[in-house]
Amino acid sequence: MANLFENLPVGLPGELFETLARGKHVRIERIVSHGQVSPDGFWYDQSESEWVIVLQGSARLRFEDEAADTELGVGDHVLIAPHRRHRVTHTGTPTVWLAVFFQDGSAGHCRKD
Amino acid sequence: MANLFENLPVGLPGELFETLARGKHVRIERIVSHGQVSPDGFWYDQSESEWVIVLQGSARLRFEDEAADTELGVGDHVLIAPHRRHRVTHTGTPTVWLAVFFQDGSAGHCRKD
Repeated sequence: MANLFENLPVGLPGELFETLARGKHVRIERIVSHGQVSPDGFWYDQSESEWVIVLQGSARLRFEDEAADTELGVGDHVLIAPHRRHRVTHTGTPTVWLAVFFQDGSAGHCRKD
Repeated sequence: MANLFENLPVGLPGELFETLARGKHVRIERIVSHGQVSPDGFWYDQSESEWVIVLQGSARLRFEDEAADTELGVGDHVLIAPHRRHRVTHTGTPTVWLAVFFQDGSAGHCRKD
């Protein structure tokens, strides 16, 4: 057993990404931010779906298809569809995110052997 | 956007399970308990992996292969392997869980069309 709010890093130059659990089609990550934001002009453009929640601190996301930022406080969660371009415009110090990345597997199909 | 800690049910006779997001191989659920425990002699025996975290309140889990309960406070998370039998022996009022159920897909294989 581990605790999501323990062993928070301090003094790191960047964000810390840690995989808490993973399956063939899913990855659960803790992300700890300390004020980092996405570089100017950078957009995340991911092939996976991402469900993300802020569990400590606060953050702002900007979706390319929206005019204004989305503010996230503790408990706020969003589902980001694959290739929906977005960037992080604010994070608190610290901000603890929990993110679940997953593939729908719709590009192929599965069968039993 | 929604908030995990809002719209908590009150006065329900049972636990409330809500799917927050899902993919072909993954399901993200909020579970709200109000003191419920597993019935005597009942064991969860799931075909999926379950990663679960307590985010409000507290709980105790008992794994059949362990002699003592596992105590879960806020932020504590565990990964429960498929078919690892377990039961809930205590929940606070309320207890908010976040659970990610996922399949490894190892029973078959996937291919592109």
